[in-house]
Amino acid sequence: MPNAPIFILIEPQMGENIGASARAMLNCGITELRIVNPRDGWPSEKAHAMSSGALDIMPPVQIFENVKDAIRDCHTVYSTAALPRTMVKPVMTPRAAVRDMVEHAQNHEKIAVLFGRERSGLSNEEIALSHALISIPVNPEFSSLNLAQAALLIGYEWRMMADQTPPVDIPMGKSFPATQKDFDDVMTRLENELTQHGFFRVDEMKDLMKQNIRNMFMRAQPTDQEIKTFHGIITALLGKKLK
Amino acid sequence: MPNAPIFILIEPQMGENIGASARAMLNCGITELRIVNPRDGWPSEKAHAMSSGALDIMPPVQIFENVKDAIRDCHTVYSTAALPRTMVKPVMTPRAAVRDMVEHAQNHEKIAVLFGRERSGLSNEEIALSHALISIPVNPEFSSLNLAQAALLIGYEWRMMADQTPPVDIPMGKSFPATQKDFDDVMTRLENELTQHGFFRVDEMKDLMKQNIRNMFMRAQPTDQEIKTFHGIITALLGKKLK
Repeated sequence: MPNAPIFILIEPQMGENIGASARAMLNCGITELRIVNPRDGWPSEKAHAMSSGALDIMPPVQIFENVKDAIRDCHTVYSTAALPRTMVKPVMTPRAAVRDMVEHAQNHEKIAVLFGRERSGLSNEEIALSHALISIPVNPEFSSLNLAQAALLIGYEWRMMADQTPPVDIPMGKSFPATQKDFDDVMTRLENELTQHGFFRVDEMKDLMKQNIRNMFMRAQPTDQEIKTFHGIITALLGKKLK
Repeated sequence: MPNAPIFILIEPQMGENIGASARAMLNCGITELRIVNPRDGWPSEKAHAMSSGALDIMPPVQIFENVKDAIRDCHTVYSTAALPRTMVKPVMTPRAAVRDMVEHAQNHEKIAVLFGRERSGLSNEEIALSHALISIPVNPEFSSLNLAQAALLIGYEWRMMADQTPPVDIPMGKSFPATQKDFDDVMTRLENELTQHGFFRVDEMKDLMKQNIRNMFMRAQPTDQEIKTFHGIITALLGKKLK
């Protein structure tokens, strides 16, 4: 994974929001936090409490007096903001922005993401300092995200970009999917018992019903252990003693 | 967009978490919230305050006494939980789970997502009621997400699944990208002026330098309006009066 982006909070008002943002960052493996002019000063007890320990694990937060200083050593800068009508800049979804960040980060650039003030966001002068804007495509009728939620969504996309977790996994412990031989055996046994017990009353329907029964259990894709359980169920229902 | 999932909070302790979850849901266009045994009862002033108005817009929250009743009318159920070692169930990333939800929802099924208690999560009996588990692949060394953050990430993936926002957009207002004729004109003018002012001191390098200058400005992909500005810049630097 290349250099993670630096998150820069511009004049955040509430220590709680700083702490919750730090927690969201570390949840996503992003550890460098800069703050421009935190309203209530720094360090902040409220921020530390809300970070659930994240601020103790992350490198010390760097404090700056203005945005230009905070991005001085960075190469590519993104702002979470709506595009002012007077500007021509790329506006990206978080997913596309992160793809773009990875390209820059692989080039060993330092990447920064600016987050605006809770109420008033970023000024046009601040937005002008960024190469691209990130717009989170939430419900247009209820679109206000708090600071930590915006940080979480961008951090999450960053993390997902490199995440190797299989999208779907069925952990089986010591079990393993049953072989088709074992599956066929238990199905054949079930069908034989059902035949003997008069389950298939209409002979022409027998094959179709057999197929449907197999389809239902096939969708479950039983493990080798579950096939044994299945045999036990049949034995028990037959009124026989389990071995 | 097919039926959105129903989010079901199991015995949430803090009204604030319920409210923040409702806000995150509505941010993502998900409006049906059910709660099993909220610790501090319902309605909750704290929940309403933290929802930033979301709970007033969403349909009334439904309250249930147990999980089975809460999922009674649902067809496919997901749990945000870690897989108990004793169980064999699919474990999905939020992105894969949402893909799976869309398949079920397009089939007109009701989908539910269970969220566990803040501290103790879901019991094995509750997890057993779900078809699949959702595991959010956050930083394994700092993985605790609060309730609203988990709701936000799953809701966000749901929203992104259907979102039509172009990943990258460069809104230009009344402007339009410059034609290559206009771009070539301003570059040619610049090159001519630079030649007259002795900028290209080494003749063999002239073509290469011209190419590099064009490359730099080409990456900016100027608009038609910006090409006019560019002409104005050249004129001004030449010490001529702007028309």
